[in-house]
Amino acid sequence: MKTAPRPLHLHEDRLFPADAAQRAIARRLYAEVARLPIVSPHGHTDPGWWAGDACFANATELLLVPDHYVFRMLYSQGIDLDALGLPRADGSRAEVDPREAWRLFARNFHLFRGTPSSLWLNHVFHEVFGLRLRLDAGSADHYYDAITDALQTDAFRPRALFDRFGIEVIATTEGPLDPLAHHQAIRDSGWNGRVVTAYRPDEVVDPEHEAFSGALERFGAITGEDVHDWDGYLRAHRQRRAFFKSMGATSTDHGHETALTANLSRAEAKALFAKILQGRFSAQEAALFRGQVLTEMAAMSLDDGLVMQLHPGCLRNHNPRLFARYGRNVGADLPLRTDYVHALKPLLDRFGNEPDFRLVLFTLDESTYARELAPMAGHYPCLFLGPAWWFHDSVEGMWRFREQTLSAAGFYNTVGFNDDTRAFLSIPARHDVARRVDCAVLSRLVAEHRIDEDEAVEVARDLAYRLPKQAYRL
Amino acid sequence: MKTAPRPLHLHEDRLFPADAAQRAIARRLYAEVARLPIVSPHGHTDPGWWAGDACFANATELLLVPDHYVFRMLYSQGIDLDALGLPRADGSRAEVDPREAWRLFARNFHLFRGTPSSLWLNHVFHEVFGLRLRLDAGSADHYYDAITDALQTDAFRPRALFDRFGIEVIATTEGPLDPLAHHQAIRDSGWNGRVVTAYRPDEVVDPEHEAFSGALERFGAITGEDVHDWDGYLRAHRQRRAFFKSMGATSTDHGHETALTANLSRAEAKALFAKILQGRFSAQEAALFRGQVLTEMAAMSLDDGLVMQLHPGCLRNHNPRLFARYGRNVGADLPLRTDYVHALKPLLDRFGNEPDFRLVLFTLDESTYARELAPMAGHYPCLFLGPAWWFHDSVEGMWRFREQTLSAAGFYNTVGFNDDTRAFLSIPARHDVARRVDCAVLSRLVAEHRIDEDEAVEVARDLAYRLPKQAYRL
Amino acid sequence: MKTAPRPLHLHEDRLFPADAAQRAIARRLYAEVARLPIVSPHGHTDPGWWAGDACFANATELLLVPDHYVFRMLYSQGIDLDALGLPRADGSRAEVDPREAWRLFARNFHLFRGTPSSLWLNHVFHEVFGLRLRLDAGSADHYYDAITDALQTDAFRPRALFDRFGIEVIATTEGPLDPLAHHQAIRDSGWNGRVVTAYRPDEVVDPEHEAFSGALERFGAITGEDVHDWDGYLRAHRQRRAFFKSMGATSTDHGHETALTANLSRAEAKALFAKILQGRFSAQEAALFRGQVLTEMAAMSLDDGLVMQLHPGCLRNHNPRLFARYGRNVGADLPLRTDYVHALKPLLDRFGNEPDFRLVLFTLDESTYARELAPMAGHYPCLFLGPAWWFHDSVEGMWRFREQTLSAAGFYNTVGFNDDTRAFLSIPARHDVARRVDCAVLSRLVAEHRIDEDEAVEVARDLAYRLPKQAYRL
Repeated sequence: MKTAPRPLHLHEDRLFPADAAQRAIARRLYAEVARLPIVSPHGHTDPGWWAGDACFANATELLLVPDHYVFRMLYSQGIDLDALGLPRADGSRAEVDPREAWRLFARNFHLFRGTPSSLWLNHVFHEVFGLRLRLDAGSADHYYDAITDALQTDAFRPRALFDRFGIEVIATTEGPLDPLAHHQAIRDSGWNGRVVTAYRPDEVVDPEHEAFSGALERFGAITGEDVHDWDGYLRAHRQRRAFFKSMGATSTDHGHETALTANLSRAEAKALFAKILQGRFSAQEAALFRGQVLTEMAAMSLDDGLVMQLHPGCLRNHNPRLFARYGRNVGADLPLRTDYVHALKPLLDRFGNEPDFRLVLFTLDESTYARELAPMAGHYPCLFLGPAWWFHDSVEGMWRFREQTLSAAGFYNTVGFNDDTRAFLSIPARHDVARRVDCAVLSRLVAEHRIDEDEAVEVARDLAYRLPKQAYRL
Repeated sequence: MKTAPRPLHLHEDRLFPADAAQRAIARRLYAEVARLPIVSPHGHTDPGWWAGDACFANATELLLVPDHYVFRMLYSQGIDLDALGLPRADGSRAEVDPREAWRLFARNFHLFRGTPSSLWLNHVFHEVFGLRLRLDAGSADHYYDAITDALQTDAFRPRALFDRFGIEVIATTEGPLDPLAHHQAIRDSGWNGRVVTAYRPDEVVDPEHEAFSGALERFGAITGEDVHDWDGYLRAHRQRRAFFKSMGATSTDHGHETALTANLSRAEAKALFAKILQGRFSAQEAALFRGQVLTEMAAMSLDDGLVMQLHPGCLRNHNPRLFARYGRNVGADLPLRTDYVHALKPLLDRFGNEPDFRLVLFTLDESTYARELAPMAGHYPCLFLGPAWWFHDSVEGMWRFREQTLSAAGFYNTVGFNDDTRAFLSIPARHDVARRVDCAVLSRLVAEHRIDEDEAVEVARDLAYRLPKQAYRL
Repeated sequence: MKTAPRPLHLHEDRLFPADAAQRAIARRLYAEVARLPIVSPHGHTDPGWWAGDACFANATELLLVPDHYVFRMLYSQGIDLDALGLPRADGSRAEVDPREAWRLFARNFHLFRGTPSSLWLNHVFHEVFGLRLRLDAGSADHYYDAITDALQTDAFRPRALFDRFGIEVIATTEGPLDPLAHHQAIRDSGWNGRVVTAYRPDEVVDPEHEAFSGALERFGAITGEDVHDWDGYLRAHRQRRAFFKSMGATSTDHGHETALTANLSRAEAKALFAKILQGRFSAQEAALFRGQVLTEMAAMSLDDGLVMQLHPGCLRNHNPRLFARYGRNVGADLPLRTDYVHALKPLLDRFGNEPDFRLVLFTLDESTYARELAPMAGHYPCLFLGPAWWFHDSVEGMWRFREQTLSAAGFYNTVGFNDDTRAFLSIPARHDVARRVDCAVLSRLVAEHRIDEDEAVEVARDLAYRLPKQAYRL
């Protein structure tokens, strides 16, 4: 359905409460944080962008194909992923004109009404590319051309955008087998952008990962450790963590199906590892192994100071047909009900009271905010709450996070915002949304006379800038 | 306690946000949808009303005795169900003057303050019966007489009300043994109201249903199939589905204690069915059987195009004393914590990616909105989210539904409103509440500059009218 | 960081909605309830305060050391409990200058921004002690001196404060072994303050309580019953309940890890009790025993009229290091996911329909409000919902409680507010917060034209005063 062109606005008061008194407060708070540098302590951007500083290809390749928020919504309405040109697991790819894929996306952009994707994308369109018409069937080609043309210019190369976005530091995420060549190349280039890595060892930690045994072999080869021995396996981790730390890492990250941790004796752990290596293990044993490795990671964090992040509660690859065709990360990962109180106890029994250990917890199960996570973070010195994550990284999700963690954890057991994205261009948009929502939350507290405005200013600045730096030791 | 008579208002801005700017937007949006025809794709009205078009008896019989929302609240405050004249399981009924029952209700009407029942009932009182005093002890007789008198007039016969309410189509719900005589009579009568059925086979699907074995016998008799053979049993379903479809059905409905589905081989299914028929099965086997039938129903839906609805997560008849005395549906059904991500996987593994299959999911466990249902509906092409259901069919419940499903599922993986009621007179009230709440939700998005008002108008119209028709293939 | 002194305000409109129209309504409603007497039907104040009427020692001893909300937050940010002077399990105590502890607290008072502790404490500072500067590093000594000096005056003795606070009745909580000497002394003193006890038998009910076997011995000694026989054990309970009732008790209270109840035959119960006494029981058997005792307590309540309270869903002493050093109740108790629908069925099967039995349910799992508790309380005559509890006793928590229980339970299956505190001075603050939030909730209903203002006034008064008296038979 073609419609008359509609203007695209980014209203200066967007996401602030409608009430005039409250909005005025939110505006004043936001003025204090809007221009603070971006600290991005956890995300999935490609360090190769800044190493090579090559131009991005076109609108579709940059904004559509890599964004699982976008293509999962399109797929949910019956749009074939091949029609969007998604790369398949076998390396092939449907022959799709990227302009046609963009048109398909544009025709269906109404599906995103009210979702975070529309907020982020409209911000990118308006602020990064200067577009002033709303995306729809009628403006699709205009968009495609304007974006694709801009991307061929120097001002839209990765390093130029990094500077333009005001990024003070960004963390990428790499597996233990990664030689970190891009990070080395960034360093060698003399460019002054700060891009650090983070240690994410899931593929050598999860025996049920399809790449586990191959990854383990390479883990041994790369470290020169006997990774078939429990002690050698742990030494290999220590070695790679040290290497990652030397490349700027200040954190590790762990994506497990549950938050289970374990506290086995060395003998039990050795025996379990032997079973794992033989490939004759139950699902429970695999979970126990992952849980024991988490506790070992905590022990290593206490030594090397890397901040530990746990992202649990996701059932990966729920849709076997899509997994077979397109592989991982195509939008069929689903949240699970998650327990923390029991699951983390073994780890906390050992390290919960250590003042120098730091564990940042995330969840996809919002029912745990008020019931488990906030009470735990409001007690254990080592625990901090990461921001609303993934499916909950929305305006409503951020409000719920604050409203459900504030009373038991306060603001100061949280770590500020993570954009957690591979969609580089959306990073300013995401931080802007987070800052606006935090200011909106604070404006309510001020308007209801629960805190004074000078306190709210301090909290707003802490959430936007100071806490992420401090929590991640950046 | 007698009090001075109080006026009954239905404020034109009811349920809209208090903030003036937001309220003005809500008002404009509502003006676009207030008069749209009612599409009621799922409910429990009695088709006999429109077949016979007889007068309703009196205020108590029409508004009190059949409304489990009403009598459960009265019961919770110590009021005996016999005092309300509820029919008992043995067919008897306490001898109660309906006027006395009404007075009892009126004296306790304050119990409903803030509940959806008070919204619905006050709407009925004001709009359908033109009452202008609030219901209380003092106005009880005035109410009883005014309503009962009106009901004797032609303007209050079922068909006249159907027309007056602006109902474009309404679906009733019948079991597979129902001969659909009322639906046939409606057709034969030449009346142009559109009343369709829906196929709800629980009594021949749930081996733990107290009527199961008798129902199964009649299922065989009515279809002429050997329903003691798995293949014959499935053929019987196909036959009745075809008959229901010929009587206008566009959907099936399934009320199970969990959302469990199964994907057994034909041999396994046959063996399980044999055990079920012998009556020697565990609770797990009964659940597995129900789950396998759900998957078979999905297969049939793919063939005959009937939209499948799943209403899981209710523990029926929690109160054995009440069940013994009054039978089913007397308000002692209780929500259960419900899993979808694991439970639906067997069915979705088979049919999740089929573009022509459609499964509408409901829940009584709101913690699944953001955690499971919205992420699933925002991925699987076949999945759609039904509206806030039963205990959650309230102003707050509808807000929570939107706020917790919007970010991952958007508006367009939902199906608009279901009134899901046997309280015929409340149908306009219920749709009005739903439209007002959706407009209020949208007014917030507009006021916070998250969508433009022209987009909100389109969404409001889609939710009120287009989506239910499209989702249910009406 | 020293800052310029900042004024401390208690704004008269605090906690009311920002919207002017809604705020005006809230203000009018609050004016109707602000001065009503305090009814405190459940809490943990020390009856010795009113028996002895001695002066409180100093600011730190009164406001910091006993307040687990306060010291858990400080501990979560790495502050040692010894530095606050907390008593240890072995009876010792770090030698800490209470003024230094107070300064440490003051320096970290920003941690409480937005939490209920800051609301309560600022209310106490402003209203009880007349302080007009905000607490921070700069005002710490001023606070310490002002509070400590005031506490030495007669106007700040416990009985004087009781009168000043407008307390009509307060319930303390005692174990069955308590001789209730303080309550007797209060009676004997001729003072007219009403302080009643409540029967909390956990230590003789929970076989996994570290004090169980010793407590059981004393239970036998104090009652003269053979408490090693099931029937004698029950008689001992009946005897102590009668004694508690004679000392003013109108309720019992039960703090269990789950809400499990049981309905064993007498023979089964006897056999289980024998196993418990031998100390050879599984965790399941211990839980079953606790569940059976709950059902026995219900039977006794039906006889003696004591209102039964159930506070389930807390995992006590999660942090073994802190438990070893400081004992119980040092802030390492954590909420658990809690089931009610299945767990309470055995008890409800027996007593759920008894019009004279009354069970007040609490939860630490907010996901049960709308899913289980409200639907249950909106059906069973015996069930009432206690207010938002402990970790959820916050502004947001109270809003969620109302918004998630209103539609299925209404206002009249709830019991008004419990302060549930041992922090005596905060009692007016806590009731004030609860009244303000209830008025704010009601103001929204009025502003959205869902109830009339005269109805809201009646509900506000009922919640603040009438319902707690009625529900607790006070």
